[in-house]
Amino acid sequence: MARVAFQGERGAYGEMATLQYFSRANLAPKKSFQDVFDAAENGDADYIVVPVENSIEGSVSEIYDLLLQTKMSVIGEVYQRVRHCLIANRGAKKIKYVHSHPQALAQCRRYLQRKKLEPMPAYDTAGAVKMIKENKMLDSGAIASKRAAELYDMKILDEGIEDKKNNYTRFLVLSPKKVRSDLKAGHYKTSMIFSVKHVPGALFGIIGEFAIRRINLTKVESRPTKETPWEYNFYVDFEGHAQDRAVQNALKSIKPKTSYIKILGSYRKAKFH
Amino acid sequence: MARVAFQGERGAYGEMATLQYFSRANLAPKKSFQDVFDAAENGDADYIVVPVENSIEGSVSEIYDLLLQTKMSVIGEVYQRVRHCLIANRGAKKIKYVHSHPQALAQCRRYLQRKKLEPMPAYDTAGAVKMIKENKMLDSGAIASKRAAELYDMKILDEGIEDKKNNYTRFLVLSPKKVRSDLKAGHYKTSMIFSVKHVPGALFGIIGEFAIRRINLTKVESRPTKETPWEYNFYVDFEGHAQDRAVQNALKSIKPKTSYIKILGSYRKAKFH
Repeated sequence: MARVAFQGERGAYGEMATLQYFSRANLAPKKSFQDVFDAAENGDADYIVVPVENSIEGSVSEIYDLLLQTKMSVIGEVYQRVRHCLIANRGAKKIKYVHSHPQALAQCRRYLQRKKLEPMPAYDTAGAVKMIKENKMLDSGAIASKRAAELYDMKILDEGIEDKKNNYTRFLVLSPKKVRSDLKAGHYKTSMIFSVKHVPGALFGIIGEFAIRRINLTKVESRPTKETPWEYNFYVDFEGHAQDRAVQNALKSIKPKTSYIKILGSYRKAKFH
Repeated sequence: MARVAFQGERGAYGEMATLQYFSRANLAPKKSFQDVFDAAENGDADYIVVPVENSIEGSVSEIYDLLLQTKMSVIGEVYQRVRHCLIANRGAKKIKYVHSHPQALAQCRRYLQRKKLEPMPAYDTAGAVKMIKENKMLDSGAIASKRAAELYDMKILDEGIEDKKNNYTRFLVLSPKKVRSDLKAGHYKTSMIFSVKHVPGALFGIIGEFAIRRINLTKVESRPTKETPWEYNFYVDFEGHAQDRAVQNALKSIKPKTSYIKILGSYRKAKFH
């Protein structure tokens, strides 16, 4: 069975995304995103599943920085619905405090205010459930997935407590091995990184190579190069496979306009909704 | 004297940026970015100074979300060098713990590892200095600006401890009042927000209106609309004033291609370095 690393404790949204993609897997929870990448690069995991973007919070910048450095390939994507539950110990009294990752607390801010519950920042969502269980905290709840409640055998006090319901996270699946994809099997997406020379219209010239070939860009993201202030690497996702003729022509035309270019991988487009 | 709100305690980098822009000001430190925007919108401050981007960490997404909602205008920009100090109480013994904002701790990660110091997350940089002082913590240090050490009369153990020296933050200055700018006085930049209709090449079409007029884009950033997943607002900074003829023509051509457009303001370009 494939060994798959994700960030967080058992029951994290990353675990749910992993099981959505692999159905069965040897799950390897890791403390940090760096640990997740290290696991695959050291041969301790065959695949990794990492969040790149949330529909409310936007891009996960740390992952973009790790994608720049990695030698792995992107081989797939998964959309995971984020549906938060208020979870407590079975013998819990009146809840006063609610522990979770600061982002999850922020996403349930209006709910917590309405119920007069005090938010307490924690290392991660499922980890907060584990903590209130291990410390038998009867005046505290935790915000995490339904799966986390079930795994730790805890009580669900409320479900779907997030302020905005359109809450989804897009995860990428990476592998240290190049995976040959069957071009006939469905629609593809490709992820790439490039930086442009410091001239007016350079980004325009590059986006133009896609536009004139009717290649649809689904995401454009910029991150500082960290070497020279206010110079950026651009991260682009587009529809199509790196082996498609139109894509190959676009990439050929783009190359002389960039100072750095890296194709992260082509992968089957995931269904959304 | 103008009342200017910024985020953090006295001695925060936001305060340094404020004093760089205003020289003299009635300083109004605020706990959160939301509080900073509220202060000006409620009439408690005449101006606000907020970080939009760091040369290492990238964009401050919370500020971009607040810029979307605000009715204020951007009237200026400032670059502030981020130079971290290790700060302690005057009677401090051997330091074991170092308190600061998680981002400052991350920016000094290699230094802390080398010195075998344990990082402890805190609410903000200058606030960590205040905390170790008020609690007379003799085994703890804090990471903050030199100004914070001076304001709280603390000892500087080490200076310039950040792992990367190219560490600058760009701040924007906003005002609830429209400020008429003298077009002859120096070079200008304009900040705007738009969203595009969901068609291939829409972003390209818009960037093209700038490119054909040789208007240089200095920053392109995208943020989720939060209404429809995977739809984005784009934040663009470009060189030129909204009253310039070329810019006016570009904006006129762009309008029918967008589903939303807002000019945040034109302001004198700040010197960098």
